[in-house]
Amino acid sequence: MAEKPLILVTNDDGINAPGIRALIEVMNELGDVVVVAPDSPQSGMGHAITLYSTLFADPIKIDEGPQTEYSCSGTPADCVKIAIREIVNRKPTLCVSGINHGSNAAINVIYSGTMSAAIEAGIEGIPAIGFSLLDYGHDANFEPSKPFIKSITEQVLKHGLPEGIVLNVNIPNVTKDAINGIKISRQARSNWVEEFDKRQTPQGKDYYWLTGKFVNLDDGKDTDSWALENNYISIVPTQFDLTAHDFIKNLENWNLND
Amino acid sequence: MAEKPLILVTNDDGINAPGIRALIEVMNELGDVVVVAPDSPQSGMGHAITLYSTLFADPIKIDEGPQTEYSCSGTPADCVKIAIREIVNRKPTLCVSGINHGSNAAINVIYSGTMSAAIEAGIEGIPAIGFSLLDYGHDANFEPSKPFIKSITEQVLKHGLPEGIVLNVNIPNVTKDAINGIKISRQARSNWVEEFDKRQTPQGKDYYWLTGKFVNLDDGKDTDSWALENNYISIVPTQFDLTAHDFIKNLENWNLND
Repeated sequence: MAEKPLILVTNDDGINAPGIRALIEVMNELGDVVVVAPDSPQSGMGHAITLYSTLFADPIKIDEGPQTEYSCSGTPADCVKIAIREIVNRKPTLCVSGINHGSNAAINVIYSGTMSAAIEAGIEGIPAIGFSLLDYGHDANFEPSKPFIKSITEQVLKHGLPEGIVLNVNIPNVTKDAINGIKISRQARSNWVEEFDKRQTPQGKDYYWLTGKFVNLDDGKDTDSWALENNYISIVPTQFDLTAHDFIKNLENWNLND
Repeated sequence: MAEKPLILVTNDDGINAPGIRALIEVMNELGDVVVVAPDSPQSGMGHAITLYSTLFADPIKIDEGPQTEYSCSGTPADCVKIAIREIVNRKPTLCVSGINHGSNAAINVIYSGTMSAAIEAGIEGIPAIGFSLLDYGHDANFEPSKPFIKSITEQVLKHGLPEGIVLNVNIPNVTKDAINGIKISRQARSNWVEEFDKRQTPQGKDYYWLTGKFVNLDDGKDTDSWALENNYISIVPTQFDLTAHDFIKNLENWNLND
């Protein structure tokens, strides 16, 4: 009998988050599942790694199911590194990260711990997908997402992904019937307009809370933001070669060596 | 008299690091300098932002010079956000980050706090450059880098940068005379092979230190790794649209909507 695919599951909301529990359920139908996820929420951690502190990765049993689980004291990227080097005994067939509680579309991909885990797997040559549902609530309903996540994962297991590319999947927060389908998209040009909430400590010292408003600066209909606003699931093929290849020639014309 | 350019300076090694002190000296020759940098080292923080904790940004005077300085409790990306929204009273003409103690070439760009600050400025539409010297030591010699940093910065002030592109500049750790020039490069395909140093707490619990070895997987002569190995300064035009545009058509052929 052919070996079942080995699927590494992680996230950035922490190993107890409902999103990862839903993702584990789906993956248990598709392969042998190893979970290595942060022991606490790591949202907004970007591609942080732990260089100056110790890391723990302890076996844990959270709920029923055939999966093996480890709770890790590090970031999402740390979880993938330690899983690959210290925990699994064969190279994972696939890494899935999420289901994130909230959007990782548009510029959010840059700040996303969920996607940093997928990218870390990609760097290691493992096909990887980050899944996010556009509902920040702890009580988000992940049920409508599950059949789509299963089908997208099956397609990736079937086709593979080229080296250097991972998938960023975002799912609108609507009922299953309201989802219009899947749109392959590009990352929308966008930013966050921060509104720092300035306060004072009891001792009179200024401090800030970061808050902000997402602003879509892109009126293209081929973007992830457009897809999501129109109740499509967006899939952005995402790369970690950050080179702006088209601009190399221009820079060469600056004659920096004169 | 024309207004001098307003230059925002930050880094990820912390506001006291010799690298940022050297960068401030160079920038003082080119414009009005505002420094907003982390109060402690933030290497390997990637594009982390502070969502669940308070932020402080306090005026500070570290050494002589006309610059204004603020020490911030957050990550490099936080420093740029708070600088733009709460500290400067006009949009910076330019943001420079560094000089990093150590390489941000090849895959290191993904983990780099230095580059995340430059990218954050880029997202805000501010031309930005990350500078790194290939010497991890606190006592690194930044003198040979200074004339190159000045000249590259002058070129960026002159030409500007297109929206969506920042520069990742890495400088080999050699004498000024040994530098062969500047090469516009692409990010080398590479990874880190981690070797987790596994230890036990006094109570017998396993823990890990992350260590690893950089591996260049790319034999191209147009990469930043090649340039640096051959004593060239590498400049990689770096983008934060992570879309793998060329792969969109392939994904559309997967017929995910069937």
